[in-house]
Amino acid sequence: MMITAKTINKIRSIVGSENFFDSPEQKLAYSYDATPLLSQFPSAIIRPRTTQELSEVMILANHEHFALVPRGSGTGLSGGSIPTENSIVVLTNHWNRIIELDEKNLTVRVEPGVLTAQLQSTVESIGLFYPPDPGSAAISTLGGNVAENAGGLRGLKYGVTKNYVQGMEVVLPDGSIVSLGGKSVKDVAGYNLKDFLIGSEGTLGIFTNILLKLIPKPETSSTMLAFFDRISDAGETVAEIISSHISPSTLEFLDRTTINCVEQYAHLNLPVNTEALLLIEVDGHHVVVKEDTEKISVLCRKHRANNFSIARSEQEAVKLRSARKIAFSALARVKPTTILEDATVPRSEVVPMLERIQSIAQKNGLLFGNFGHAGDGNLHPTCLTDARNTQEIRSAEQAFGEIFSEAVKLGGTISGEHGIGLAKRQFLEKLAPLPAIEMMRRIKESIDPHSVLNPGKIFSLSPRCEGPMPKNASQIKKYIDAGAFT
Amino acid sequence: MMITAKTINKIRSIVGSENFFDSPEQKLAYSYDATPLLSQFPSAIIRPRTTQELSEVMILANHEHFALVPRGSGTGLSGGSIPTENSIVVLTNHWNRIIELDEKNLTVRVEPGVLTAQLQSTVESIGLFYPPDPGSAAISTLGGNVAENAGGLRGLKYGVTKNYVQGMEVVLPDGSIVSLGGKSVKDVAGYNLKDFLIGSEGTLGIFTNILLKLIPKPETSSTMLAFFDRISDAGETVAEIISSHISPSTLEFLDRTTINCVEQYAHLNLPVNTEALLLIEVDGHHVVVKEDTEKISVLCRKHRANNFSIARSEQEAVKLRSARKIAFSALARVKPTTILEDATVPRSEVVPMLERIQSIAQKNGLLFGNFGHAGDGNLHPTCLTDARNTQEIRSAEQAFGEIFSEAVKLGGTISGEHGIGLAKRQFLEKLAPLPAIEMMRRIKESIDPHSVLNPGKIFSLSPRCEGPMPKNASQIKKYIDAGAFT
Repeated sequence: MMITAKTINKIRSIVGSENFFDSPEQKLAYSYDATPLLSQFPSAIIRPRTTQELSEVMILANHEHFALVPRGSGTGLSGGSIPTENSIVVLTNHWNRIIELDEKNLTVRVEPGVLTAQLQSTVESIGLFYPPDPGSAAISTLGGNVAENAGGLRGLKYGVTKNYVQGMEVVLPDGSIVSLGGKSVKDVAGYNLKDFLIGSEGTLGIFTNILLKLIPKPETSSTMLAFFDRISDAGETVAEIISSHISPSTLEFLDRTTINCVEQYAHLNLPVNTEALLLIEVDGHHVVVKEDTEKISVLCRKHRANNFSIARSEQEAVKLRSARKIAFSALARVKPTTILEDATVPRSEVVPMLERIQSIAQKNGLLFGNFGHAGDGNLHPTCLTDARNTQEIRSAEQAFGEIFSEAVKLGGTISGEHGIGLAKRQFLEKLAPLPAIEMMRRIKESIDPHSVLNPGKIFSLSPRCEGPMPKNASQIKKYIDAGAFT
Repeated sequence: MMITAKTINKIRSIVGSENFFDSPEQKLAYSYDATPLLSQFPSAIIRPRTTQELSEVMILANHEHFALVPRGSGTGLSGGSIPTENSIVVLTNHWNRIIELDEKNLTVRVEPGVLTAQLQSTVESIGLFYPPDPGSAAISTLGGNVAENAGGLRGLKYGVTKNYVQGMEVVLPDGSIVSLGGKSVKDVAGYNLKDFLIGSEGTLGIFTNILLKLIPKPETSSTMLAFFDRISDAGETVAEIISSHISPSTLEFLDRTTINCVEQYAHLNLPVNTEALLLIEVDGHHVVVKEDTEKISVLCRKHRANNFSIARSEQEAVKLRSARKIAFSALARVKPTTILEDATVPRSEVVPMLERIQSIAQKNGLLFGNFGHAGDGNLHPTCLTDARNTQEIRSAEQAFGEIFSEAVKLGGTISGEHGIGLAKRQFLEKLAPLPAIEMMRRIKESIDPHSVLNPGKIFSLSPRCEGPMPKNASQIKKYIDAGAFT
């Protein structure tokens, strides 16, 4: 249903004209996020000034039946912030103040638009530490991190975003404003609504402030890089690090394709005739770091690492990390379209999973690079393709379907850290247990009976009925061709 | 509504006569748990042999409208396993096998009836560690721990039960059997149903197996005991330990009343003319443990500890720990009825909270002992009273109402680790934000529309309408007096 001009006027009058945007350029700018292939123009974009205004818009949405799509920096990789048809995008990135840093309780309260890296550097300057570090930390917002339960490179030792959220103020789909959790580190008063909202992908509430837990900053760290001629050697190294009861803060993997792309892009003098790279970091007390570094060196050599470096300075550490840090960008420049996924398996199944991905890619005639968080079993199979090649895109979809099935067969999941959004909805509905999907639907309906908040994300709203899917990116081209911007 | 004989026969035929119990003695045995003042006879008790049988009973409950009340060891302190009227108690403690210990993925899969301490000693024997350690670990079941999101003495450094649950098989209220989570350490595929079921107090599902995360066992530990003449000195010690970025595994507190009761009970040669005891433990790498122990010694002396001991052996550590370990038992022998609560505040507010508890106790003419997890702000104000003294019980209820209000005012919560159950339902409904309670109710209704699973726990099912409350313990006496057991 189109949003009527009358409704649009009401929305505009709540947020003020200067916070209401609906020019074609503005609609284009908010029609996509970092997810390839998907885009959809919203009806308008709003920047509410206060929590109260957001609540009023939410109440109006229930009365006049339009949808709201919350958005942080738009770095999501599953299409969570892509508009649905006839929806209003709600910006949150202007709410970017660090409200309170409480050193006694080791907490920090932030507005949802604070950037992840900005928070990290602020707390590190006083000896504290916010561990979650999604790949997009430099530009991602904490509101988005919480909505997606973002992971990152330090998950193995430190966990993910949900392990650091102690409280939140949230506007619920009915417009009520509620504060959940707090500075008490333990809280079991009723259902754990706070944890349930984390990772709910903007479908159950919009955060207006977030209380995060901090920990003491590790005293020091050590960074290592190892190359292997066989993936199985790298896999055995990872397995023996874990079974030796070492908990690295980072344990990352790059395959041959990714190593080669990185080298072609950045000329880091990486050995290109090699099958696997492991980036390993340990942190903590200097004595423990020294011991763990020695143990890991021994294990890498034992498992036939053909090239092993330990950073002797922070500058060298930055250099060793760079191969991993630029993996995605390096892969992305090979072909016009990059589809990055996050099929995840128990860490014992990483090598079998990589083998299956390779054979699925070959069978479907596709080029895949693989990298990811080896210690977590959280892989990023990445298909290098071209959106204009309909045939190849269809093959890629087929291949990802097979990859997700294999991940689930190996005891894993179709998403380790990116969420489901629109991009993986069909796979969730196919691969998740039916009673679980049914339970999700019922909870969504009970909290958001008029489907005002980010409808159609994670699962379609009615069983066996695909909700409105955004159209392909080609739609934008048509729109431009039709002279919308002239 | 009474459960009819016909329905009873159907239940009996599902589980088999040998797993169906309804003698008066058996009903009495399952009419109460560790919560004082509350009890209620169930209609019967069942011990389902299989998940399938449990599912069948659950489906029958939906058709014939009776309630099921799951039960582990019955050690809960909020009445979560106390039968409601016309309910069937579902035993789970016979499901007590450790199913699989996976050293590669650092996980263990258990049936819900495995005892917490049994799991701990099993995994510690191979160098692994399951940190959550509720006070009742020796007899509590893991199913109960997960249902209540149990805390314990190691929460400050290691978190609580929810931080160690990676997956579960659960029978939902409609009888469907679903597997949630798994061995992947990261999983964001759809709503986080697994975490939502943790701490749902048996109202949303019954766990039939649980996948727990393990961590490497700390290399060594150090145990310290310090006494202070002023509570504020103990509070400052705690604050400075935290602000020095030390993370003790245990940081426990006993007040004067508790110290005296412990001494009278166990004759440990504790200094009785003292206001506060702190039990402090650090664990990890031996170098870190040594350094942290030295730093903590200095801090305790700086804040005027009048008596400070460091255990030089595990035997000495056991002795130092014993004052804290027996605190509850020592308080419980002073008067016939012991009401132990878990009002929790941000750790910066522990001293103000203790002062308010003392003044509330005095004002209401009550004897309170206080102990708890100082590092977590998780206090156990404990009222020593007598259930037969109706007047005093009423004063105690009044006092706890005031204590919970104060905890919430200080940014805390009415329950840090015991849950709400029946005992604190009225306080949750009074002190939690209305939209949160409303959201809990809606979710419960959406998942359990016929209220078959543990109804009336956490919140009453209809707003402003008290659901069926179990009667006072005096009911049992009347029942016995009436000759039910003769």
